Amino acid sequence: MSKTGALFALTLTLLLTEGLCRLPYGYFQSIEHNGFKTEPQFQEKYFNQTLDHFNFNGIGNRTFSQRYLITDKYWKKGSGPIFFYTGNEGNIWAFALNSGFITELAAEQGALVIFAEHRYYGRSLPFGKDSFRIPQVSLLTVEQALADYSVMITELKGQLGAADCPVIVFGGSYGGMLSVYMRLKYPNIVTGALAASAPILSTAGLGDSRQFFQDVTADFQSVRPACSEAVRGAFSQLKELAKRQDYSRIQSEFALCKRPTSAQDIHQLNGLLRNAFTLMAMLDYPYSTQFMGNMPANPVKVACETMLSGYDLLANLRNTAGIVYNATGELTCFDLYSLYLECADPTGCGLGFDSLAWDYQACTEINLCFESNGVTDMFPPMPFTESDRKQYCYKRWAVVPRPGWLKIQFWGDALSSASNIIFSNGDLDPWANGGVRQSLSSSLMAINILGGAHHLDLRESNEADPESVITARKTEAHIIAKWVKMERNRLKQFH
Amino acid sequence: MSKTGALFALTLTLLLTEGLCRLPYGYFQSIEHNGFKTEPQFQEKYFNQTLDHFNFNGIGNRTFSQRYLITDKYWKKGSGPIFFYTGNEGNIWAFALNSGFITELAAEQGALVIFAEHRYYGRSLPFGKDSFRIPQVSLLTVEQALADYSVMITELKGQLGAADCPVIVFGGSYGGMLSVYMRLKYPNIVTGALAASAPILSTAGLGDSRQFFQDVTADFQSVRPACSEAVRGAFSQLKELAKRQDYSRIQSEFALCKRPTSAQDIHQLNGLLRNAFTLMAMLDYPYSTQFMGNMPANPVKVACETMLSGYDLLANLRNTAGIVYNATGELTCFDLYSLYLECADPTGCGLGFDSLAWDYQACTEINLCFESNGVTDMFPPMPFTESDRKQYCYKRWAVVPRPGWLKIQFWGDALSSASNIIFSNGDLDPWANGGVRQSLSSSLMAINILGGAHHLDLRESNEADPESVITARKTEAHIIAKWVKMERNRLKQFH
Repeated sequence: MSKTGALFALTLTLLLTEGLCRLPYGYFQSIEHNGFKTEPQFQEKYFNQTLDHFNFNGIGNRTFSQRYLITDKYWKKGSGPIFFYTGNEGNIWAFALNSGFITELAAEQGALVIFAEHRYYGRSLPFGKDSFRIPQVSLLTVEQALADYSVMITELKGQLGAADCPVIVFGGSYGGMLSVYMRLKYPNIVTGALAASAPILSTAGLGDSRQFFQDVTADFQSVRPACSEAVRGAFSQLKELAKRQDYSRIQSEFALCKRPTSAQDIHQLNGLLRNAFTLMAMLDYPYSTQFMGNMPANPVKVACETMLSGYDLLANLRNTAGIVYNATGELTCFDLYSLYLECADPTGCGLGFDSLAWDYQACTEINLCFESNGVTDMFPPMPFTESDRKQYCYKRWAVVPRPGWLKIQFWGDALSSASNIIFSNGDLDPWANGGVRQSLSSSLMAINILGGAHHLDLRESNEADPESVITARKTEAHIIAKWVKMERNRLKQFH
Repeated sequence: MSKTGALFALTLTLLLTEGLCRLPYGYFQSIEHNGFKTEPQFQEKYFNQTLDHFNFNGIGNRTFSQRYLITDKYWKKGSGPIFFYTGNEGNIWAFALNSGFITELAAEQGALVIFAEHRYYGRSLPFGKDSFRIPQVSLLTVEQALADYSVMITELKGQLGAADCPVIVFGGSYGGMLSVYMRLKYPNIVTGALAASAPILSTAGLGDSRQFFQDVTADFQSVRPACSEAVRGAFSQLKELAKRQDYSRIQSEFALCKRPTSAQDIHQLNGLLRNAFTLMAMLDYPYSTQFMGNMPANPVKVACETMLSGYDLLANLRNTAGIVYNATGELTCFDLYSLYLECADPTGCGLGFDSLAWDYQACTEINLCFESNGVTDMFPPMPFTESDRKQYCYKRWAVVPRPGWLKIQFWGDALSSASNIIFSNGDLDPWANGGVRQSLSSSLMAINILGGAHHLDLRESNEADPESVITARKTEAHIIAKWVKMERNRLKQFH
């Protein structure tokens, strides 16, 4: 079976699997050599990173091993740019293997490519298995991650004889947020940022808490209005059964391994089901992917076909969830609590170590109080207020979220003094409207990708790509080349 | 007696006195009402500040009381700008009382004025008397201070109905560095910065470690070359006496309370003497001041007159030091170790609690490895290498300095993407050449003040002011008004 839960954005089935089931270490490396068109031949390395950039006492002087992947295959040594992926919430191999555009662009522009792993994810665990204890977990912050990247870039440039090489950062989803933040906070180090599907506004608490699940719904509705209506109908039937406490019927309809016994179990089931739709909306690529679970081509279309395949709405809903949770058909029943983890991110935290890390981030800096309500979306009402979050996070991690902090620290929508950022978004992506959709200036450009799902543009080119993403990538390549050229000219003035 | 030691920039005799001798609390308030031309009538308030902005666990949820001074006497309520002084290494009253230009400008431009006290200084001690223990001291960082100001501005704007009021930050010396950093890192919160005498380059480890004492020397040399020669001659005689271990002669020549007994004592004496010159060069104002000790008008000129007042160079040197350490003439002897504290800042850390805080900052983020060598300057060779610093700081505070960090975090000289900063410097100030002396763009402007000492432009206007500072203040006023207007126009587009 596929082990995925629902995730903010990019946490990976594969790496979750690694966390949970201890896949052999070489798993991703072997994937790397199977059909990766551009054969990037990444080397896996470790960087001796400062543990606490913001405190010089105690553990402040200690370091940890931060993983990064590097390839100089395409690099014009000493003069070509550096393309640096600001790793997000997961194993860095998964991002490297699902962001082929960066390597394709490196081949075109003679760039050195580095994918850096975010602290507390993948193999970059500062305290090993104890990393998620309190207080060890407390060095997991956005600021520390950005400082890691800044220090790493500075030192690697020195080591590699790349002092004058312009650095462009790339990232998708939370990784895209980090790319934006790098350009905001460290423009001395990075010349420009391509931020794909980066919800910098919604995570800063700006916008409408209903937007996310409303946009998930819209994806299904746009295939056929009857599709989202069927989903509503199915959830409505489930609600009726739950009201009658007909738990054995619920168990059989949804092929649950254990019979639900409480409202909490039903809540968990609703969460698990909602999350299948979330994932399919995010990952609605025109070809099958193994990025976050085994996803068929055009999963939203497949889901709608399934939802409308007969009159038994509950069976349809179960089978639709199966697209996500039972892609290989190996599961004979669904285990409610091992397939989906409720956490401080209503769009899902995934499973495994990385889900712990992401939950902590959603409990501290990253605001994700999104609700479904059954009115503006097709899901059961599942509120997640700031008060719910506070209560959960204090109990789980002994922390109090600071809802206003991200907006203060990373500027929210007050971006007018920034420059050299591309905000790309696909209109299928429920995260898109939490990001920047319209250009703010000639150097803060929004690119909209018609028919694009979550950071489709970062993926390697594919025959099934819509014209829009081909155009978007060309535009991105052009802008990035211009940034690199301008930075080179600027540096020349100093020599 | 005057209790001052030598200081980086702005730490104050008066506040040191407060720390050491427990002056009555109302001391500064009473000064305020004596002859402060613009009568700002500051209210003293406290803000409930987050203790650790970069860690949510443990003490991360605790707060401390941060002092600030505020006056709305000149404010066009709700529309006038906010002039915010980013407090530096000392009691905030001293900065408020020695930065009269800000209040004069507020009267002219209808601004609200806030002077915020830097954490770990004055009365803003997060852990009271235990603040300088290890690890309590570890929350004293530049980043925490900037986050304090950003959170404070954001919350006070809400409380005061000032949401749409542009904020301009002001600061002198380290406070000027903080103003620059605020504009670099939080342009969402501050529209522009007037950074007076802010050595952002030298403190980031850029430039020549000999520059500072060379420029101190140049001040005395420019009065008369014979002046600096006399200083050299005096130090040379002291060296001879020390070589002969003629400690009783040294004691009598320098009116020391205790007879020196070791090379360490002589080193301490050299440090104390060098620091008198440093202070006079920094504070070479055309009128007498009580900012950092009782300083006569034109102290460098007075010092040169003293140095050249007779053939007994050692007596002249003693009397010159007396200008700084015995301004009131009450001292009958000099106590080597109570008048001057050797620390991680070779230009002096002052005395009292604030000196502890500054020493810690000089041991962590702020690089001040300046040397005198007797060749490019008139002082005894007193090297202070990165290795000396490392050794001292580890022993004193159990920290290892990170010499490259400030340049990474606050951009060093890679400022091309910044905007709306005025870098003002006076050519008498030995800190000037550690800062930005030439305009970098139309919105990164350097202002040079001929005949100006350390942030003279921030002081209230005075009849003895040179024409240059009058012009500088007019230019600054004009630019600040323009920033405020532009920001207002920008905000109007959103409404």
